[in-house]
Formats: sequence, structure tokens, C-alpha cells
Amino acid sequence: MHNDTLREIGGILGAVRAKKPLVHQITNYVTVNDCANVTLAIGASPIMADDITEAADIASVASALVINIGTLNSRTVESMLAAGRAANAAGVPVVLDPVGAGASRLRNDTVWKLLEEVRFAVVRGNLSEIRFIAGLDANTKGVDAGDVEADGDSVAMAKALAARLDTVVAITGKTDIVTDGGRVLQLDNGHPMLSSVTGTGCMTTALVGSLCGATDDYMLAAAGGILCMGIAGERAYAAAGARGTGSFRVALIDALSQLDAPSLEKEARLR
Amino acid sequence: MHNDTLREIGGILGAVRAKKPLVHQITNYVTVNDCANVTLAIGASPIMADDITEAADIASVASALVINIGTLNSRTVESMLAAGRAANAAGVPVVLDPVGAGASRLRNDTVWKLLEEVRFAVVRGNLSEIRFIAGLDANTKGVDAGDVEADGDSVAMAKALAARLDTVVAITGKTDIVTDGGRVLQLDNGHPMLSSVTGTGCMTTALVGSLCGATDDYMLAAAGGILCMGIAGERAYAAAGARGTGSFRVALIDALSQLDAPSLEKEARLR
Amino acid sequence: MHNDTLREIGGILGAVRAKKPLVHQITNYVTVNDCANVTLAIGASPIMADDITEAADIASVASALVINIGTLNSRTVESMLAAGRAANAAGVPVVLDPVGAGASRLRNDTVWKLLEEVRFAVVRGNLSEIRFIAGLDANTKGVDAGDVEADGDSVAMAKALAARLDTVVAITGKTDIVTDGGRVLQLDNGHPMLSSVTGTGCMTTALVGSLCGATDDYMLAAAGGILCMGIAGERAYAAAGARGTGSFRVALIDALSQLDAPSLEKEARLR
Repeated sequence: MHNDTLREIGGILGAVRAKKPLVHQITNYVTVNDCANVTLAIGASPIMADDITEAADIASVASALVINIGTLNSRTVESMLAAGRAANAAGVPVVLDPVGAGASRLRNDTVWKLLEEVRFAVVRGNLSEIRFIAGLDANTKGVDAGDVEADGDSVAMAKALAARLDTVVAITGKTDIVTDGGRVLQLDNGHPMLSSVTGTGCMTTALVGSLCGATDDYMLAAAGGILCMGIAGERAYAAAGARGTGSFRVALIDALSQLDAPSLEKEARLR
Repeated sequence: MHNDTLREIGGILGAVRAKKPLVHQITNYVTVNDCANVTLAIGASPIMADDITEAADIASVASALVINIGTLNSRTVESMLAAGRAANAAGVPVVLDPVGAGASRLRNDTVWKLLEEVRFAVVRGNLSEIRFIAGLDANTKGVDAGDVEADGDSVAMAKALAARLDTVVAITGKTDIVTDGGRVLQLDNGHPMLSSVTGTGCMTTALVGSLCGATDDYMLAAAGGILCMGIAGERAYAAAGARGTGSFRVALIDALSQLDAPSLEKEARLR
Repeated sequence: MHNDTLREIGGILGAVRAKKPLVHQITNYVTVNDCANVTLAIGASPIMADDITEAADIASVASALVINIGTLNSRTVESMLAAGRAANAAGVPVVLDPVGAGASRLRNDTVWKLLEEVRFAVVRGNLSEIRFIAGLDANTKGVDAGDVEADGDSVAMAKALAARLDTVVAITGKTDIVTDGGRVLQLDNGHPMLSSVTGTGCMTTALVGSLCGATDDYMLAAAGGILCMGIAGERAYAAAGARGTGSFRVALIDALSQLDAPSLEKEARLR
């Protein structure tokens, strides 16, 4: 049913590996190394740069910009805004990961400011972060929330938010939801052990950014990045889950580095 | 002889896995990813946040706060103080890791200020760092010191310091010492290879913070966190030590993620 | 032909393991954990400290200082300058990794300022970074550049630059070039998979810094650090390359931690 969609996503993955897009990331210092390594594993080229005097320069020559507010501070928030505006001006797609939105006033204010001043190609978060952005009661406990699971209401909420913000909204969880306000894709790949490793959400956003760097179809780029992480999570669990979370994390990067279009198309569970 | 103590520690580990306490950590950018991953591996939920405008907010809703001065700077020192005071006001236990105390004036001044303005549930360091805090000649060479080993004098020093600061003092080394000024526990788990991986001290403090988030007995939480790391070090060496320090580090996280109360009680070497 | 040189390099590696030199590193938050772990793996002791109030203190008591501009900002640039000057005054060798030189004005200006105010024992970069420093057209795309390969012209350029700056210049790539302006060593170890893991350049510089901490012959220290990484890359590929880039990275640290002088001398491919 989704064969064409999967073929297109496979094509984007192939384009990433062929073009090696430069993905500028202003992200947190907790998971930044993993974000760089998954970017390389999927075939793109990461550059992490957050100083205000170079953020805009680099964003405007990159193929995509990822803004992740995981360990934001007053210095880096300014850089995020400057880089986001420069990317917009240069036609470079910008992806937002609103880590912990709802968990502190600083995060909330930053998310509002970013959404006001920057146009995002994709906003990817867990359900509680996206609910917060939609103006609903969030249940954000720390940055690894997501115990709550998406349902039919979540799909409607995501669609409305995507339409309102004119962006692709992606909610990751047991079932992932990706929508541009019109189309909706639901993905069932993944493994519960992914939540036992820090930064798998951030890494997913880095993958989405990598795919955005190789296509203009940000809806499929978002679905593709999330699919890559979900399939890699399944493969990593099969390969190393029984050994523990340290080995699982290593196997996750292994799986991403080995993933190609045919196996992505074959293993994807798309609704 | 220590069967009751071990049963209680096992119970705290079980409580961590059941309650998933939120552990706020203001820590260094060298080992922060490992700290987050061991926090998840032991069953707690990490949140790293160091901006002054959110540090106090987050500390006061967390189950425990860990302050680690590994790569402190003037911006983060203010956040440590604000978060520490907020945690104190909210009754949230605070754990200090005085990384490199004795190695520079900035670190020394920061440790004094923190001890003056914040009440700590546990202070965990290596012998040279704790000796420095006790006002004795330290021999702090960098941040991975600890060639010196604890002896009878160290126990007396630790007891006096704990009583004076009204905290639990934990010295990790070949034999670990944990004391609240009255009781003393000595632990003999661990493996020399733990000092060949960066941040095993920081990770131990993250584990202590995780256990503090699930009990009011900070003495046992400190001993328990140190035991978890010691036992995991032994298991990691057995599983992967011969391959080298990279594999040992992966196996260390594996072992923490697999550790349960019965095996902790069985493998602990407590005096 | 290079037997004596290799024996001397082997001797430096042995000295690192025997003396455990303290290596102060002001580096980026992307790869800092790997830099600390390779420093430990090769036998040295890392200390990461970038606050202006302690950078000079720590640099002047260290055995070597590494300055890496990977995620520089206005705060850390001042610390780099202060630490560099203090190291110079104390006779501590300083190693520069000009990450991304040519990619932004901030990086370019910083490199010029550092080269003006600090005397470096070794400058290690990829070809595009070193070409930029030499005043030639660089082709710096992000921070993982290096598709261009060194040739005869590169050797002449490196020699001239080393002579002009009175330092050792090391260009890493398929063939590595190390020169002090007079002597030239070319190294053929390594594996293409090294460029699929973030920070292998930074790690190489950390190794060069570690060896500089145990000798006065910075030319051989540079060649030695690069050889260690090249040989470790080959061993890691053989041990784990087929599994993917996550396992390769773990095996790389394993290999560094296992490397000794006899096998270094045997496996080195030096011209």
C-alpha cells in the first residue's frame, strides 16, 4: 500500500549516502557525540558550531540545520535564533527538537521564540513535548518523557498543529506519527530498549536533519529518519539487546551504518 | 554480618527501578553522556540542565540533584549554587562530586562556596579530593588522581569530616569508605581497569544520586551506588577486559543495566 | 631504513605508559570524551579545563597542552590564548588542532591569533585545514573534510609552513605527512573507516599531545601519535569493521589500549 512512499524514502536514504550533505547542528552537550556519529553512520557530514559569530555563516552554507534545545543556555539560544534565520534566508531546511518543552520556563519561552522567528521544515518531539507546543496540558517529566502513548486524538492534534505552523510535525513513541497537516504516516518500527539509552530522540532528529539535507520532501525525510532509527533499534536489540544497554547502543550505530534502501523498504512498518 | 545492610541496599536499588526518580545533574561535558547512560541503566531518569534561569526550577522538582565540578566555569558555578539552594529548600537531596579539588584555585574556591551555601546529602570523591576538603595536604594531580590509597587514618579523617559537615562522606579507591560520621562501611568491590576509563568516578556519583532519589538513607544510597559500580567493574572485566578499555566501558554499562538486588547482595564485599 | 626512527617512537610510547604525563586539553564538546579515553588508553592522564580563571594554572603544571578549536566560542578562545601563553612560559609543549580552519571567519581569526600569540610544538590538521593556514585556497567543507589527498606539492607546502612557523606540521589523510621543515616522514597506516567515526582527527591530536608530554622530540611525538591511530584503525577494522561503525569505534579504543612499542615498530608503515 505504501510501496511508492517507501521507495521514495529509500531514494532519499540513497541520496544522503551519495551527496553526503553537510548538517549543521546546534545541540546539547549530553548527546552531541552520538548525534555526530549517527549523522556519519547514515552518510551525511555533521558540523557542530554554536558560537553567535559563526552560527549564521555555517547554517547558510549547510544542507540542513538541526536545532536541539537539550542543554540550552542564554548564549546558545541567541545562536539558535541567528542560525535559524540565516538558514531560512538561504533556503536551508531547519529541524527543531524541542527537548523538555514543558519542563521549565526557559525551555517554553525558547520554543515559542524559535517558532515565532524561524520557519521549521520539521518539528520532532515526543508526545508530551508536542502537546505542550500545541498548547495542551503537557506531562513533561524531565527530558526522557514519553510514557504516554499517541492515540487518535494525537493524530488530530498533530495534523492541526502542522497546519497551523505550516511545518511537518513528527511525534515519536510506540507508534510514530508524521504529518504535514494533510497527509499522515504512522510508523510501527522501534524497540522499547531505545528509551534505555540517552539521546535516541536527539539522534532521530539528527537523522531527520540528514535526510532533509538530501530532498525537498520534508514529510518523507521526517518519516525516513524515524524509520531508520526504528529499524536500527530492532536490529540492535536482536544483535545485542540481551547483553545490556551499552552493547545495544553500539549495535544501534552499527545498524545505522549498515542500513541501505532495499532493507529499509523491506523492514519498514508503515501505516 | 552485613546481611541486613545489604538487603536494605538491594531494596533501594529495587526502588530506583520501580520509581524511576528524576535525577537533575549539573556536570561536566567530558563524561556527561556516560553519566546519563548509567543513570538510565540503573533505572533512574536523568535531566542535565545548567542554565541559571532553569537550574533552580528543575532542581526543586527533581528527586535528587548531582553537582559535579569537572569542567566548571563561572556561568555554571552560579547555576550550581542556585540549584543547590533550591534543592535544599525543597528537601531534595544534593550530592557533590568535587572533581579535581586541590588542582586549581577555581576548583578550591568553588568547593568551599558550595559547602558553605548548600547542604549536601553525600560528598563523593577520591582520597586526594576528600583530603583537600578536610584541609589536609592533597596530592591532586589532574582529575584522575587516586594513586594514594586509603588507610586507617583515612577512615578517621572521613568520619571527622562527615561529622563536621553533617553529611555522608564517600571516598572511592581500592577500598571505598562510606561514613556519616558515626557508622562506617568499607567496600572491596571494583577493578583496577575502572581507572583506565574516563569518568568512572563521575558515573559512580551519578549512581549515588540515583539511589538518593529513592530513599532517605543517604549513607546506604552512597554505599549502594558505589557497590553497583564496583560490581559492574568486576563483571565488565570478566566479560570484556581482555579486549581492551573500549569494550570494558561498554560492558560496564551492560552490567549496570543488568544488575538486580539479589546479585548485588550476593556479590557485594562489604566490611 | 627507518628502524632507528621507529625504535625511538616506540621508546616514546613506552615513556608515556611509564610516566603517565598529565595532558591538559581545551577541546570541543563533541569529541571530548573520546579524547579523554584515548589519552588514558595510550597511558597518559587527561585533564579538560577551559575556564579562564584556571586554564593558565593547569596548563603550566601539565606535561603538554592540546588546543582544539572544534566548538570554540568567545569564552573558550580567551582560555586557549591564556593557557597557550602560560604553557609557553613554563616550557610545556602546545599542540594545535585547527578544526574547520577555513570554514568560518571565527575559526580563521582564532587560528591566526593563536599562531601569533602562542608557539606550537605541533600543528596537526587535515590537508584543507593546513592549506588554509599556509595561505592557500582551502576547500574546507565542515569539519570532516579531507577528501583531497596530499601529494608532492603538499609535502613542499608543509615543509615551508613548518619552517616559517618554526613548528612541526602534521597533515593526516590517506598518507600522513610530518615535517619540522627539514626532515619529512610519510606514514601509510590507517583505514578509510576512520573517517566514518566522528573525532578520529581530534583523538589523533590527543595522542600527539600525550606523546609530546613524554619527550622533547616533537617531530617523533607527532609521527608516533599518528602511527598509533593508524595502526589502531587497521586493527579495529580487522576486529570489528564488518559489524559497523559503532563496533569499529569501540575496537579503536581497545586497540590503542593494547598497543605496545614492539607491535608499533612492527606494524608501522613509514617512508
